Amino acid sequence: MTTPFRLGIAGLGTVGRGVVRIVAEHGAEIATRVGRPVEIVAVSARDRRRDRGVDLTAFAWEDDPVALARRADVDCVIEVMGGANGPAKALVDAALAAGKHVVTANKALLARHGQELAETAEGAGVALAGEAAVAGGIPALKGLGEGLAANRITRVFGVLNGTCNYILNEMEARKAPYEAVLADAQRLGYAEADPSFDVGGIDAAHKLAILAALAFGTRVDFEGVVTEGIERITLADIETARDMGFSIRLLGLARMHEAGLEQRVRPCMVDERSLIGALPGVTNAVVVEGDFVGQCAFSGPGAGEGPTASAIMADVLDIARGAVRPLFGRAATALASAPRLSHGDEHSPYYLRFTLADRPGALAQIASALGRQGVSIHRMRQYGKGDPVPVVIVTHDARRDAIDAALAEIGALPVSAEPPVAIRIEEV
Amino acid sequence: MTTPFRLGIAGLGTVGRGVVRIVAEHGAEIATRVGRPVEIVAVSARDRRRDRGVDLTAFAWEDDPVALARRADVDCVIEVMGGANGPAKALVDAALAAGKHVVTANKALLARHGQELAETAEGAGVALAGEAAVAGGIPALKGLGEGLAANRITRVFGVLNGTCNYILNEMEARKAPYEAVLADAQRLGYAEADPSFDVGGIDAAHKLAILAALAFGTRVDFEGVVTEGIERITLADIETARDMGFSIRLLGLARMHEAGLEQRVRPCMVDERSLIGALPGVTNAVVVEGDFVGQCAFSGPGAGEGPTASAIMADVLDIARGAVRPLFGRAATALASAPRLSHGDEHSPYYLRFTLADRPGALAQIASALGRQGVSIHRMRQYGKGDPVPVVIVTHDARRDAIDAALAEIGALPVSAEPPVAIRIEEV
Repeated sequence: MTTPFRLGIAGLGTVGRGVVRIVAEHGAEIATRVGRPVEIVAVSARDRRRDRGVDLTAFAWEDDPVALARRADVDCVIEVMGGANGPAKALVDAALAAGKHVVTANKALLARHGQELAETAEGAGVALAGEAAVAGGIPALKGLGEGLAANRITRVFGVLNGTCNYILNEMEARKAPYEAVLADAQRLGYAEADPSFDVGGIDAAHKLAILAALAFGTRVDFEGVVTEGIERITLADIETARDMGFSIRLLGLARMHEAGLEQRVRPCMVDERSLIGALPGVTNAVVVEGDFVGQCAFSGPGAGEGPTASAIMADVLDIARGAVRPLFGRAATALASAPRLSHGDEHSPYYLRFTLADRPGALAQIASALGRQGVSIHRMRQYGKGDPVPVVIVTHDARRDAIDAALAEIGALPVSAEPPVAIRIEEV
Repeated sequence: MTTPFRLGIAGLGTVGRGVVRIVAEHGAEIATRVGRPVEIVAVSARDRRRDRGVDLTAFAWEDDPVALARRADVDCVIEVMGGANGPAKALVDAALAAGKHVVTANKALLARHGQELAETAEGAGVALAGEAAVAGGIPALKGLGEGLAANRITRVFGVLNGTCNYILNEMEARKAPYEAVLADAQRLGYAEADPSFDVGGIDAAHKLAILAALAFGTRVDFEGVVTEGIERITLADIETARDMGFSIRLLGLARMHEAGLEQRVRPCMVDERSLIGALPGVTNAVVVEGDFVGQCAFSGPGAGEGPTASAIMADVLDIARGAVRPLFGRAATALASAPRLSHGDEHSPYYLRFTLADRPGALAQIASALGRQGVSIHRMRQYGKGDPVPVVIVTHDARRDAIDAALAEIGALPVSAEPPVAIRIEEV
């Protein structure tokens, strides 16, 4: 088979440029691997005149991405524009309607429109692939959806946002507060000017929703992800965690229960010696638990030009070889609608931080409030002196609704100087 | 497509039984995923009467595995008999000759005959797949060969033998010598009665040879793997390593140099905080470095009924979907013959342990011998008192041939009470 496999790239930011580079540098090797040439024929971006540091002269230029999607000489459209709606959605719709394969790095698009797009692609007999949308360069979707495909998946979790992992690691390393580290991360380009997608957990929630659909054979349900960011994590929380043998991680986790599908992105405390707990810098990791395999982990760079381009090209190579697979591992029409696990039904041990006025009986009021909700205390520590004074409590296994009720009650007490903080302690 | 995909299983030990279980328990889900039923039609093993704890009554029985391979109703043969030659080789030859797909967990077979078998399979247009042969349940071949296929691989390494990792971890945890931990591992079934394949590094070398061929597009060259086991590692080495921030691991590593392909399995010292250094129990890990992706790691259970069956079935599902891919990522006839890097050309910092008679000038003789070979000393420690006394030296980057020459000279000195030990220090 020597018919070339022809690509159109929509979007020439960092990732689009990476794809151009990888094809330029490894085109010959790629052709050997897949048994046919893989070529870029056309590109589309907003500004034609911008110098992107790569040679685009051999490619046709389309100002309109939808026109790119409809070109007769394009077999596969690579969507690296970003955004859940607008031009990216229009491009992918047009490409699928024109019978083109689509490879995308767009987590927001797949988390919000994955069901509809997968049905369209499968109806048209073309591929819709998104390895690059989850955990950057790590072949996590392939590992989960193909490598562990014979397992019933019991749990999938991971560190899905490198910016948050970087901030949490840096806070500890530099003994610096959240705001200072975030500001530096923005200066260094590790965090966006508007960081809320990252630090608020939305980006991780997009990825988690895709992982959960693939893991459990359910319709992607981004709206069902309970999401909490790292904005309220203090250096004191991180240091107290370390003191107890834990690291704090923004953990995305999905698990199927009889009562429904649990999907959440939350700061969690995890064993500092575990793979997740020891994850350095901006590294991402996806951990999958299957009934036959046990626990497997995939870790590596979760973002950036090279890693993301590597993942996009893995999809392209698969499709060029003729592997047209359903995005979520089964026919989209066969995906189940899982009920959502009620937020209150979550349970685990919790780390609780209170900031209390230094008054006699303050601790007793906290302990009573927890007791009334059936939350039992495993360890308690008061840190230092002063007024107000931080108090840390580690609970035994407790229901989230009991924790929420106790915290609401305690937060309203006159001795509470600041709203209490609860961080889940997770077995990883 | 509702034609069933029909399996014949040759070998009903632990892994064969796992495959029977996985098909029995997840058959319906597997059919949903691949769009057709996947069924076991026939099995073969030595002893028909043995109770294996799984229901085999629905399957045809073949006493002769070659007869199983030739059955008209078998589409794919699963080889889980083991052994590089003999019945396993005869079975796989017969299956490929009969135009059957073959899925195998047999690392020795693929490391020794992979080139010939891959050429035969590709000539016949059938699949030969071996995910289960490397790192058990971890989808490492898929991750490397498909997930990172668009990269030029610069290095691949890992902990490829769980028994060795278990022994090294246990020696430290229990402060016990090698022999005692090995004996316990044998009693617990973690090590074979003849442990030499595991502790001598042969098993890891089989896996490394397969990984290297896939990573670098070279003909599998098991004979070219420089192999050294863990038999000479002492508790003192492990404790000294820890003291300096290192863990000792039996590391398989392959790297392409201009001068040739480096393939080695050796005990190495690695940063204790790295993924490899922190790897617990029997866990395996494969780390891949690619020019675009950077470093990705795959970790999980490297052996056992469930994990190995999971990997076998991943291959089966791929083939049932129609994905017939070359075993080594490119056409076997296109694989290059790489020259072997000369053993002496390896270089790195080394940990050296000497056991010296407590005599004036002993250390000076060691230092002079190292100096004559151009090996420069980074750190030196004498542990305790006594006669003889252990002395540890950490070198700067040094060529292996210089280390070997210095150690030969030092080992022959009258002050040397025991043969010196050299352990490579590896950046991982």
